[in-house]
Amino acid sequence: MIDERLKKQMDFLIEIDKVKNIFRMTYVSDKSRRENDAEHSWHLGIMAFLLSEYVKEDIDINKVIKMVLIHDLVEIYAGDTFAFDEKGHLDKYEREKESANKIFGMLPEDQGKEFKQLWEEFEECETLEAQYGAMLDRLQPLILNYATDGGSWREHNISVEQLYKRNEITLNKGPKEFKDLINFVVDDCAKKGYIISK
Amino acid sequence: MIDERLKKQMDFLIEIDKVKNIFRMTYVSDKSRRENDAEHSWHLGIMAFLLSEYVKEDIDINKVIKMVLIHDLVEIYAGDTFAFDEKGHLDKYEREKESANKIFGMLPEDQGKEFKQLWEEFEECETLEAQYGAMLDRLQPLILNYATDGGSWREHNISVEQLYKRNEITLNKGPKEFKDLINFVVDDCAKKGYIISK
Repeated sequence: MIDERLKKQMDFLIEIDKVKNIFRMTYVSDKSRRENDAEHSWHLGIMAFLLSEYVKEDIDINKVIKMVLIHDLVEIYAGDTFAFDEKGHLDKYEREKESANKIFGMLPEDQGKEFKQLWEEFEECETLEAQYGAMLDRLQPLILNYATDGGSWREHNISVEQLYKRNEITLNKGPKEFKDLINFVVDDCAKKGYIISK
Repeated sequence: MIDERLKKQMDFLIEIDKVKNIFRMTYVSDKSRRENDAEHSWHLGIMAFLLSEYVKEDIDINKVIKMVLIHDLVEIYAGDTFAFDEKGHLDKYEREKESANKIFGMLPEDQGKEFKQLWEEFEECETLEAQYGAMLDRLQPLILNYATDGGSWREHNISVEQLYKRNEITLNKGPKEFKDLINFVVDDCAKKGYIISK
């Protein structure tokens, strides 16, 4: 037999497996299909330490990795909201908060509280860790859309302005290298006609 | 423009996207399809901190998380080797080492070295961090096979003995709770006829 605490942790691990079937708009690099939340979160986890040299030394990178690994678990019940779906964003926070209570409520109380706090910190986007996580969360699909010749941007007629708005936090608060990356991708995609340039 | 270092990091991030199409034997929890390496690694990353209370305090959990997130990148060129494929394991290390040189060689030299060392440490399985990672790498499919009523074990007529052998490191060196978990799953699956019990 296993004790109650371990059983709760195992049930949680099985339940979160469902994010592997929550699909995003972004395509994987060979364009064969859309990527799912588990894959996206894995990619962000690696980015968090691969690109850490560009952000302030006092950012707790390990906390950022944990944050990005769990940030999309709420979509198990709330679903994915496309970055450019303005209507979907109106009630996004409420839907996801309810979902957070449900998913993190499966854990032993102390851990459920810890995971929920980590998710809330990410959502509130006020600490340096949450802001770095938010930058990565926007850079990752940018890189994949670049790798797939405009991918989901072309499908949805996304404009240069929408991309700048979506990456606002990085353009305002991010390191020079991240801004360079955004400008490089946006300029190149606009030139190639993958995004609408007004 | 972006500088050479950042360009290498971006190219690496695009190249590693390919693990999203390296499929394992294990099924995702709704049995709809097999899981891929990116999803598996994401799951391990969360397990590493969710279950850290059971392992020795001097284990560097953050290092384990990084290790498990990158441990399967070598399969991009070497492919996945099924845990119970004895023949495939004969040249596994050689194939994967060559693959490691290729994938980590894409990075700026200092980072390539750092990532390769992390992968080698995991493979050598001598440090406490690598051993904890190895235990998780075996527990995760065990949990998914349990959640899918025997999943890939039934398909390949896996026996109780093979499962004990596969989880040897945990049964020899792991915490009591992990052993309990293995015994609970193996006993229950044997009782239900999902694995061969001699």
